[in-house]
Amino acid sequence: MTYIIGTGILKVGDHWEKSLRNLAAEASILAIEDAGGVSVDYVIVANSLSGVVNGQENLGSYVVSRLNLKGVPALKVEAANASGAAAAIVANSLIKSGDAKRVLVIGVEKMTDYTSLEDSNAALSTLMDSEYEAFHGATLDSLHALLMREYLRKYQVKREDFSYFPILMHENAVDTPHAQYRFKIDLDAYISSPLVAEPISMMDVPSPSDGAAAIVLSEKNEGPNGSVKISSFGQATDRISLYDRKSLLEMPSIRMAFNRAVSKLNNFKPDFYIIGEYSSVMGYIATEELGLAERGKAYKLFMDGEAKRSGPTPINPEGGSKARGDPIGATGVYQLAEAYLQLTGRAQGWQVNGARRALVLSIGGVGCNSVVHLVEGV
Amino acid sequence: MTYIIGTGILKVGDHWEKSLRNLAAEASILAIEDAGGVSVDYVIVANSLSGVVNGQENLGSYVVSRLNLKGVPALKVEAANASGAAAAIVANSLIKSGDAKRVLVIGVEKMTDYTSLEDSNAALSTLMDSEYEAFHGATLDSLHALLMREYLRKYQVKREDFSYFPILMHENAVDTPHAQYRFKIDLDAYISSPLVAEPISMMDVPSPSDGAAAIVLSEKNEGPNGSVKISSFGQATDRISLYDRKSLLEMPSIRMAFNRAVSKLNNFKPDFYIIGEYSSVMGYIATEELGLAERGKAYKLFMDGEAKRSGPTPINPEGGSKARGDPIGATGVYQLAEAYLQLTGRAQGWQVNGARRALVLSIGGVGCNSVVHLVEGV
Repeated sequence: MTYIIGTGILKVGDHWEKSLRNLAAEASILAIEDAGGVSVDYVIVANSLSGVVNGQENLGSYVVSRLNLKGVPALKVEAANASGAAAAIVANSLIKSGDAKRVLVIGVEKMTDYTSLEDSNAALSTLMDSEYEAFHGATLDSLHALLMREYLRKYQVKREDFSYFPILMHENAVDTPHAQYRFKIDLDAYISSPLVAEPISMMDVPSPSDGAAAIVLSEKNEGPNGSVKISSFGQATDRISLYDRKSLLEMPSIRMAFNRAVSKLNNFKPDFYIIGEYSSVMGYIATEELGLAERGKAYKLFMDGEAKRSGPTPINPEGGSKARGDPIGATGVYQLAEAYLQLTGRAQGWQVNGARRALVLSIGGVGCNSVVHLVEGV
Repeated sequence: MTYIIGTGILKVGDHWEKSLRNLAAEASILAIEDAGGVSVDYVIVANSLSGVVNGQENLGSYVVSRLNLKGVPALKVEAANASGAAAAIVANSLIKSGDAKRVLVIGVEKMTDYTSLEDSNAALSTLMDSEYEAFHGATLDSLHALLMREYLRKYQVKREDFSYFPILMHENAVDTPHAQYRFKIDLDAYISSPLVAEPISMMDVPSPSDGAAAIVLSEKNEGPNGSVKISSFGQATDRISLYDRKSLLEMPSIRMAFNRAVSKLNNFKPDFYIIGEYSSVMGYIATEELGLAERGKAYKLFMDGEAKRSGPTPINPEGGSKARGDPIGATGVYQLAEAYLQLTGRAQGWQVNGARRALVLSIGGVGCNSVVHLVEGV
C-alpha cells in the first residue's frame, strides 16, 4: 500500500520573482517538513511545458541539484494537464514494487516566463496535435469552444447554464488560501465576461499561471500530520485530436479510467470529487462521464447546490482549475495534495465536513489522457 | 521479474520524410510483432526534446493515438539522454508492482525538425542548466570540451589518445545495420577533423539525429524470439551544472548507479558493456567510473584492443553514441534493445560471441543522471 504522508502547496498565480527551480524547491521543502523531515529515495518531477517555456529539460537532475539531495535518482513525467497524476502513478509503482520506499512527487509549472498571449498559446498548443490542430491555428481554448458549441447545440442548453460552474468554483476558491482567484462572480459577470474563443469566455477557462505543489509518498502510514492511502487508480487515453473522435461530447478516457479504478475496490463511495476540468464544458462532461449526472444535465448539479462543498456531491471544494488555477503539469499534484489535506481534516476554511474518501480525476489535453485516483483517510 | 520479449529498431539518421509520430509507430509495430503480436497494457514514451524541437508534448496520447491502441494508458518520461533508461525503470516498476503486465517502451527523438546548428544547440542546451550555463552561451559540446581540456591537463594524455575511442566506435558500427555512421576512421581522420569546441572535434561527439527504438517488457519469459531478464538496475543523479561539482573528471552518478545495481546481485560479471558516452572523454570517464580502468588510463583499453568486440572487455559493440548515433531521448531504448539482441544471439554481424550478461549504462546531461541496467539471457 502507498500513503501520502505530507504536502507543500504554493499559491497559484504569477510568481515573477521565482524561477522554475525555486518554485519546485519551495514546495518540496514544505512537503518534506510536513512529512516529518523524512529522507526520500526517489524524486519525480511532473511538468509539461518547461522545454518550450523555460528552455529547461532534464528536470530530475535540475530539481534534485537545487534541493541538494545528493545522488537521489530522479526523472520527469509528462502527460499534459495530467502530468502530476501520472507522476503519482509512477511513484506508487516504484513503492509497490519495492524499488523505492519514499518518493517526493513535485508538480511545477512556470508559465509566466512567457509574457505574450501568442507565446502562451503556442506553449499550450504542444498539448494538442501539433500537425493537425496546432499547425492550423487552433488553440487549446478554441478546441474547448468547439466542445461548448456542440454541447449547446446537442443538449439545447443555454449559455447561462454554463455560468453555474464558474460561479461555484469562484465561491469555493474564496476560502482556499492557495487559490489564484479568490473572489465571487455572478451571472452578470459571467455574461459580460470577454470572449476568448466564442462561446468560451474568460470565465470559462483558467489563465496561464505559475505553481508548484509537492507530496511525499511512503510505503508506510507514517505521516506526522496524518496519512492518506492511495486505494486505487485507473488511467486511460483517447485520440489526441478532436477530429479523430466519434463524439465531441463523450470522453471515454474518463469513463475507462474511472471504471479501472473502481474495479479494483468494493463499494468505494467518494465523499467529494476533485476534477481537473480546464473549461466549464469540460467540467460538465467530466461530471457526466463519472455518472454523477445524465448527459446534458450536469448544470443542474451546480445550479441546485448539490455540488457545493456542503452539498451531497461536493465537486472541487477548492475551486478547481477555474478558480484555484491550472498550472498545467503541476495541477495533478495540487489535486492529490488537496485531497490529502481534506482527508486529514486540515483543509481549514475549505474543509468538506467528515470527508473520508475522495475521487481525484485529472484530465490531460482535451480529454485524451485521464487518470482517476481513489484515496481515503486511514 | 521483468523480461524484454521483443524489439524494433530504426536506423539512426536523418528521417526527413517521417514525422515524430511515424518514427515512434514504426519502431513500436516492429517491436510488438517481434514479441509475437502481444497486447500491451501500458505505453511509455521516452523523449527529451519534443516540446522544443517538434512543438509537441502530451506524447503518451499522441503515440497511442497513432498506434490505434484504444484506451491504453500512457505517459512520457524524460531524463535527458537517459530518458530511455528511466522509461525502462518505470516500465519495470509497473510490471513488478502488478500495475501492468506488458509495457511498450518507445524511445523517439526527431532532431532534424530543426535545421540550423543554432536551433539544434538551443534544443540540446535544455539538457544543461538554463540559467547558469545555457544562458551564458555554453553549448553541450562546449561543456564536453571543458571536460576534455581538464582531462588532457590533469592526466597528461595527448589529444591523439582520444582517437582510440571513436576509431573503435566507427569500426564497430560498420557491422551494425541500424548505426548512423558505418565507416571506419583512422588517426589522420581524427586529427584533421574540424573542431567543434576546442579540443572537441566532430570525431569526438555525435551529430543531431533522428531515431526510434522500442522494446516490449513483460512479466513473463514469453518472447518468441527469445527473452532477456532485467536482473537489476541502479540510478543516481549529480549536480546538473559543471560549476557546481568538485571535480570535472569524476562522475559519481555513474559510480553510484553502478553500485546500486550490483548491490542487488551476487557476482554479476558482464560479458560486454554498452555505455551512452556522448563524447570521447565522457567514454573514458565512464569506463573509469565503472572500474574498468584506472583514472586517466581508459585510452589503453581502447588502444590495446581490450574493448573490441572480440576482446576481453567489449565496450559498445554496436558503435556507441559516436557511431551508432545518439537520438537523445531515444538512446537508452536503443541501448537496451541492442543488449536484448546480443543476449538472444540475434546481433548478426555485430554479435559478441557467447554473450550472456550485459551492463547497460545510460548517461543523462553531462553525467548528471545515470542509469545502470544489468540484463541477462534466460
